[in-house]
Amino acid sequence: MAPQHVQIAEIEIDPIQLDSYNAAVKEQIETAIRVEPGVLVLYATAERDNPAHVRVFEVYRDREAYLAHLQAPHFLKYKKTTENMVKSLKLVPLTPVMLGAKPQ
Amino acid sequence: MAPQHVQIAEIEIDPIQLDSYNAAVKEQIETAIRVEPGVLVLYATAERDNPAHVRVFEVYRDREAYLAHLQAPHFLKYKKTTENMVKSLKLVPLTPVMLGAKPQ
Repeated sequence: MAPQHVQIAEIEIDPIQLDSYNAAVKEQIETAIRVEPGVLVLYATAERDNPAHVRVFEVYRDREAYLAHLQAPHFLKYKKTTENMVKSLKLVPLTPVMLGAKPQ
Repeated sequence: MAPQHVQIAEIEIDPIQLDSYNAAVKEQIETAIRVEPGVLVLYATAERDNPAHVRVFEVYRDREAYLAHLQAPHFLKYKKTTENMVKSLKLVPLTPVMLGAKPQ
């Protein structure tokens, strides 16, 4: 079985456009979780002391599911909508040690 | 309803003791998710390019559940077991923007 693809995106947003950015990322995540079978977790958060610093913890079924997500219409729409809101983007690839979560 | 308590722990481990650290964090997470009703998510990961840099994404039902976790026997055991393995620890408090996850 191929390993899960796990990463954190560290994104710095233009503070003036933060509400618009948050609306766009919420819509993207809601759609991706609902329609893409390989998108398992997208946890978008903001640093409490600096809300323009966004971190998204991401788990995909495998690398193939991640690559499919990058081509999905809702993701491409999110990228286009937010391209002038994002000041910097850093992707940190991760290896799972233990992914523990309460059954929903 | 009190807000969820969300944070990322950024932990630098002594590379020589990494296997021991990973075993201790796995045991701690398995127990916390199983026995603590307020511990919702503990995702322990390592940076792929630097496995001694561990990041734990944490979601608790509320701040009270987080404070209870800090006093739980399995957490205190983990802290004692790993105190000489951890070179640095930084906690980053987060505000949820959108926590999206597949139903399990």
